[in-house]
Formats: sequence, C-alpha cells, structure tokens
Amino acid sequence: MAEAITPRSQDYSQWYTDVILRAEVADYAPVRGCMVLRPYGFALWENIQQGLDKRFKATGHQNAYFPLFIPQSFLQKEAEHIEGFAPELAVVTHGGGEKLEEPLIVRPTSEAIIGYHYSKWIKSYRDLPVLINQWCSVVRWEMRTRMFLRTTEFLWQEGHTAHATFEEAEAETRQMLDVYDDFAAKEAALPVLKGRKSDSERFPGAMTTYTIESMMGDKRALQSATSHNLGQNFAKAFEIQYLDRQNELQHCWTTSWGMSWRIQGAILMAHGDDQGLVLPPRLAPIQAVIVPIYKEEVDRTPVLEAARRLKKSFEGSIRIHLDDREEHTAGWKFNEWEMRGVPVRIEVGPKDVAKNQVVLGRRDMPGKEGKKFVSQDGLTAAVQALLDEIQTNLYNKALKFREDNTREPKNYDEFKEAVAESFARAWWCGNAECEAKIKEETKATNRCIPLDQETSKSGGMCIYCGKAAKEKAIFGRAY
Amino acid sequence: MAEAITPRSQDYSQWYTDVILRAEVADYAPVRGCMVLRPYGFALWENIQQGLDKRFKATGHQNAYFPLFIPQSFLQKEAEHIEGFAPELAVVTHGGGEKLEEPLIVRPTSEAIIGYHYSKWIKSYRDLPVLINQWCSVVRWEMRTRMFLRTTEFLWQEGHTAHATFEEAEAETRQMLDVYDDFAAKEAALPVLKGRKSDSERFPGAMTTYTIESMMGDKRALQSATSHNLGQNFAKAFEIQYLDRQNELQHCWTTSWGMSWRIQGAILMAHGDDQGLVLPPRLAPIQAVIVPIYKEEVDRTPVLEAARRLKKSFEGSIRIHLDDREEHTAGWKFNEWEMRGVPVRIEVGPKDVAKNQVVLGRRDMPGKEGKKFVSQDGLTAAVQALLDEIQTNLYNKALKFREDNTREPKNYDEFKEAVAESFARAWWCGNAECEAKIKEETKATNRCIPLDQETSKSGGMCIYCGKAAKEKAIFGRAY
Repeated sequence: MAEAITPRSQDYSQWYTDVILRAEVADYAPVRGCMVLRPYGFALWENIQQGLDKRFKATGHQNAYFPLFIPQSFLQKEAEHIEGFAPELAVVTHGGGEKLEEPLIVRPTSEAIIGYHYSKWIKSYRDLPVLINQWCSVVRWEMRTRMFLRTTEFLWQEGHTAHATFEEAEAETRQMLDVYDDFAAKEAALPVLKGRKSDSERFPGAMTTYTIESMMGDKRALQSATSHNLGQNFAKAFEIQYLDRQNELQHCWTTSWGMSWRIQGAILMAHGDDQGLVLPPRLAPIQAVIVPIYKEEVDRTPVLEAARRLKKSFEGSIRIHLDDREEHTAGWKFNEWEMRGVPVRIEVGPKDVAKNQVVLGRRDMPGKEGKKFVSQDGLTAAVQALLDEIQTNLYNKALKFREDNTREPKNYDEFKEAVAESFARAWWCGNAECEAKIKEETKATNRCIPLDQETSKSGGMCIYCGKAAKEKAIFGRAY
Repeated sequence: MAEAITPRSQDYSQWYTDVILRAEVADYAPVRGCMVLRPYGFALWENIQQGLDKRFKATGHQNAYFPLFIPQSFLQKEAEHIEGFAPELAVVTHGGGEKLEEPLIVRPTSEAIIGYHYSKWIKSYRDLPVLINQWCSVVRWEMRTRMFLRTTEFLWQEGHTAHATFEEAEAETRQMLDVYDDFAAKEAALPVLKGRKSDSERFPGAMTTYTIESMMGDKRALQSATSHNLGQNFAKAFEIQYLDRQNELQHCWTTSWGMSWRIQGAILMAHGDDQGLVLPPRLAPIQAVIVPIYKEEVDRTPVLEAARRLKKSFEGSIRIHLDDREEHTAGWKFNEWEMRGVPVRIEVGPKDVAKNQVVLGRRDMPGKEGKKFVSQDGLTAAVQALLDEIQTNLYNKALKFREDNTREPKNYDEFKEAVAESFARAWWCGNAECEAKIKEETKATNRCIPLDQETSKSGGMCIYCGKAAKEKAIFGRAY
C-alpha cells in the first residue's frame, strides 16, 4: 500500500483502476477483457446477490440454471436479437477433440435457450406465470473494456418470465424495475433515474426496455440495470404457447431483466474519494474494523484483550474485522482500511481501555469531524446506528450531487454546455435522428425518458430540431 | 403426473431418469450432454450450496471468481494435467467475429488459471495460506452422459489453496475431505467411505487424491467429492513462490478440492424409492406440505382457514408449502408430493379442525406405519422433531444398506461374485496392473483405499496376484 492512488481530479479513469487493484477488489485476467473478482470484491458481490435474491424471492421468483452453450441456430430465431448480438459472440467450434457439427455460442444472454425450454414446459394457463431467475456469467466480446463496466465475461442475474397477457408482462417489467430501484437506493445508496429507453437503445428483440441510470463521480451516467417487456416477439420465435381458459392456443407474453457486476463499478465510482473506496454499510464486506493502538509493551495485552472482547461482542450482528497484525503501525492500518472503504473504524488504545471507551471514526467523514468517543457499553447499538447514518448520508450526498449536476437547458447552445459537464433534462421529439445528431455533436446519449415526467401536458419543443415534443429525456455522457 | 415411474427393480437407470423428469428436478438441454436445473432441483442445489459454503467459511475460506476462459498454453504447463484433460476440452476459436490468435479453453477445472494468479499475488510467507473457493460451472466433453452424474457442463465448487509447507497442504486436503464427509452425513444423509485414490484414479497433476465414495440404491459406487494434495507440481509449473522467514524463495504447496451437482444425483439415487424421490429434510426445498381435505362445500372455508393458519405458524422455521389447488384431489396431491420427495405431509380435514389436530405422514415410511395424529398446539416443534427423526432414519438406512452389501471375499472367485452385486473390501498389493486386470475381468474399479484400515499390521495377500499387500481397498462397479 506504499504507492498513493491517483487523485480523481487528475485522472478519474486511472483513479478507478488504481482503487480496484490496490484494494484487491479485482484483477486483470490473462484473457483480454476478462477479470478476476478477488475475495474482497466477491464478498461485496455476495452481499449484492443476497440483497437482490431476497427481493426476487419475495416477489415470487425462483432460481434455476440453464446451459452455458446455445446452439447457433437458436439465436437466429429472433431477427433483431441475433442482429444485436452477432458482433459480440464467442463461438465454440471444437469439443472433445472434434469439430462440432453446429457451432455453440457461449451465452451472451439466455432468452433463446430459455425460450426453447418454456415452449416445452408451458402447456396451459395454469402453468402461468412462470417466474424464473438465473445467476450466472455471460460472454460478450467487447473491444474496449473497463473493469466491471464493460468486460468480456461478466457475472449477472437474468430474470425470465412468461405471462398470459400483455398487462401482466408489463406489470412484471415495471415491478422488477422498482425492485432494482429499491435495491439501488436502500442497499447500494445509489439514487437512480427510472425511465424508458429510446428505440435506438432498446434491447435487441424487446418491445420496451426500462432502465435505471445513476450518476458517477465524474458526472457520467451508468446504466445500472434494465428490465424488458419482450411482448410476444420471443414467444412467437420460440413457439411459447398456452391453452387459455377457453381451450384456445395463445402466445405468451415474456419479460427479461438483469443486473450485473456493473453495479459494483457504480458503487465504487459513485461513492469513492481520493483516499479510496467508500462502501455503503449495508453491502460492505467489513462494516467495522477494530484497530488496537499501543506503543509500550505493557499496554499490549490489555489493549488486545479489549479489542478481542469487543470483536466477539459484535459477532452475529455486525461484519467485524480485528486488525491485530504486528508488522504494521496503527497509522498504516488507518490508511489501509480507509482505502478499502470500511465504513467505521474502532480505535482502542490504553486510555480507552482505562476509560471503558473507544474512538469511532467514520469513512464518509475523514478527519476530526467524523471522530467521536463512545462508551464500550452498548457499543454494538451505537455502531449499528452509525452505520445507518452513514448509509443515509451516502445516499443523500449522491442525490445532491446528481441534482446539482442536472441542468434544464433552454436551447441547444445551453444544452451542449450542459452535457459537457452534467446531465441535461430536455424536451425530445422522439425522433431517432435528433438523438443520433446529438450524440455525434456532443458525445451525450439519451439515457432515458424518465417515468416521472412533469405534469405539464402541453409539451414543448425538441431541444435539437425545435419540433413538438411530448416528453423530456435525460441526456448525458455515459459509460 | 399420470404416468407411473418405472420400478427400480425393472430398470434402475430408467427409474432414475423418470424420477428426475417427472419431479421437475431437471430437464435435458438441446446441447448434447447438457442439462437444465429446474427450480425444484435448483432449490435443492441452493441448500447444498449453503450447507457447504458455511462449512468453507467456518474453516477460513473466502469465495472469489476466476474467468471462464483459459488460454490453451496455460493448460499445457503441467504435463499430467493437460494429458488428463486434453480429450475433454471445449475450445473457443472465434470471438467478436474474428478468429482468435490463441484458442481459449472453456475451463474444465481452474488449477491453471488460478495458479497463474496465485503466482502474481503471493510474495511472502505473510501472504500464506491463501484459502479460496469458487462456485461456477465447468465443461468437460463427455461421450456417455447421465443426468447429474456425468454432464458436459456441470455446476460445482472448486477450492484452491496455497501453503508454505507440505504438512499444511496435507492437513488442508484432509480437512476438506472431512468437511465433505460431515456435509454428506449430516445434510445429505449419505454415509461415505473416506479413502485415498490409487495412482490410476488420481487427479491429473495431483500428488495424492482423496475421495468420498457412497453407495447408490443399485449397489454401485458414486465418487461424491475429491480433495487433492497437489504437492509442488502446480507451484512449479506456474511459479507460485514466496519468500520465507529467512528471505529465501520457496515454491508453495497447493491443494484443490471439489464437489459438484453429482452429489444431487447421489441424494436422489441413494434415498429414492419406487414412489419417487425421498429427500433428506435438511436439504429438501419443501420440508412439509399441507394438504387440505374436504368433500362438502360447507367444510371448505374452515379447513382452508386452518391450513392457512398452520402455514403461517410454520413460516420462518420450516420450509412449508400449502397445496390449496382446486383442480386436484387430495389423493392426487399425496402421490404428487410423495413423488417429489417431501419429507412430511400434513393432512387437515373437517374432523381434524374439530379436534384441533392434524395427520402427519412421513415420506420415509409410506402407509399406515408412518401416519399419526398430532395436536395443532406445538405443531411446529412436533414437525421439527419428525424431520430430525427422518433425517437420522435415512442415514441409518443408507448405512445399513451399504454394510449389508459390502463383502470381505477370501479369494478371487469370491471376489468376482461379490463385486457383481456389492462392494468388496480386499487386500491389494498396490500394483496398477492388478487393478487393471480386475477392472477388465469384473468391471469393478478400485474405489479407494480407506483411511480407516484395520489395525492389523501384518498385512495380507493381494486378492488378485496373491503377493504381499499392506492395505485393503474397496472395489465395486461405479458410475
């Protein structure tokens, strides 16, 4: 931990890489665009998984596992789908020493293979809805990669559901968007914008794609999860049909929705600072670290004993770590755990032992402001309360940051200025050409058409072409 | 559920397939040798994962995730390793529309890629031991496949550790074998034989392979998990080195150990009967099912109300399901849940409501013998006690079955007879040729050399060649 992390103001992208490598969150793999999720990063991912999985189950979903390999011909059944994914596929051509008759695709997403199975399993309206989620890794060949945000292989979950009606499918699609929003807000401390994607940003094969978008520390947007109403497109391509109550054959309506380890990148980028990571308490692998402090040998035993006793008292309620390594100074440890983003530091020295107290330091307020003396009696409750406070503070800070950096430009000149350094909320006519021109001229993309539109029904004028516009969209430079 | 399951006595293999498909545990995938784990099967897998994962963490291991793809050249670094796996590899030759410079192997196991990373991460004795586990899927091209037991892609966990000394690596290897044994016994109700593999059955690249072997309902053996002491083989191939306390560079000693969804096949085969699955309570996705029974419309509401109240009272302590479907009779439901292996059935009819009682039926004792009337007061505790009893009973039955079907033949004629229909424990000289001849002549393989040898130090005569033998081995026909 000798080298310092590049400051964000100097090179944001380098700061991001430095933090990830230095905090041992992840490492580059020897295969281009691939990544290793190291134990500290994986522990964060496990907490993300738990937070999502319990929400999926509470809304009636079950997990399952579908194969890694998809026959090439399956992907070709839905025209838009294959067109969208063709350039990104990894292809297995040989197995067991022989050339395969039909190449196999390493799944880039599983609509095709799951559609095939749903068509076998679903017979009657009584089998509906089918509500299944899968945790797995998928592969999309990426040319320009960045850890967590764009990797050739990534871990994710993908939900796939089938319904009897359009309305049910739409309700499911929106419900899962709300689930992602709830998870992002409450667990990841990330305020998100919920919206619809424009046609050009839609998932290949979907009728409607919804998204949650968050703002990173450099004011760029990050698409953090998507939920797709697939209409009957996949049901028709894969013949997913059911007999309705009148005994007539109908096509199902299907949805899919996913969140990937990208959200981990969002967490690191949205909350981190020049000292390193700042992890939201609810997801932090270590919520509080105890650092024993002593200089004289005589103090060693009482301080370590107190530290160990405290550690024991936290077990089962707080994810606690005691750093009792002998080879490092307390100061070195402070830096180390700050860099790793541990929300609360608990210092115990000889004076604290004597006074039955500890010093609590909070990661979101480094320096004196965030330090306080607290009695060892009832310490677990005090730390729990502090963790809650930090969680709320991180969310509020991120929300204020986004609000401070979202503008409402009145004309295209203001718009260009705005998107160079913030989000812009602007009237948009719905035309893909305006969207493309804006991207070409400003590098800003249409992130979403927020679900939450102002109540004004009169509409306005498209920020680019000036024609009548019914909705506002959020534009910004994005990852 | 109209069709009956093939009886085990008629065709054991067909019984196995019938049960898996009928109980919706798994389904065949359109890619040869691949399988879908359906929600009911996946719920069982989740319980297996939890049972193992908590044991791994309790012994100091952390999870991580390493890439799916391994550069071909990496696999070639350890000579025995590549020789063992070469015939089973799936090869990605194209990515993003272009031919790759170096083909990528879809991981068949991760010693190679993890070895590469350990060589980067480990610098000093202070970094040791490294104790990492990974949950993922791996691919081995199999010619003859069977659901769960031998599939082209399978879910598993693979632990990979690095140590400073041979002794530590050996202790780790043995510790993880004990962890598997403990899990198999306590969670899966599977008694296993712990032993060492002979050289011809060793993991390619390992110094010593340990195994747990269990007996299936057709008296065949199933290797249920393995734990390998890799010596310094991989450390030398991948240059995993550390500076010791004397500041001298040393090679690490590494281990690996794995259990796959094969254990799920073992659970189904060891406990199942002609009515279907019999799941061990600790792993069963549904531990108890409530079946409301009424014929008259007047009884409907009070019976359903009681059933719903009971369901609520179980939540949080027992994995409970209420089958209140209107389209099926109680008798149909009894068969259905029996087939799915739910350990306890709770029947509630109008008389039971009047008497504040229920009827409990146990899956491991179908028929009257397993039925009893129990008060609704304190029912959760009564069901919990019954679940424990069933768990113990399943283990004891499986243990008795194995003991009844393990013989100690005195000569090769007796041996041949024994292995045709049971396990045989016999003196073996340690020579690979005897082992090969036995396999050729009897189809029985050397399952393991049990760790638990009789104390007699005098030894005996090899069952095949008659030469001096120091240890006994377990022989049997295996999956």
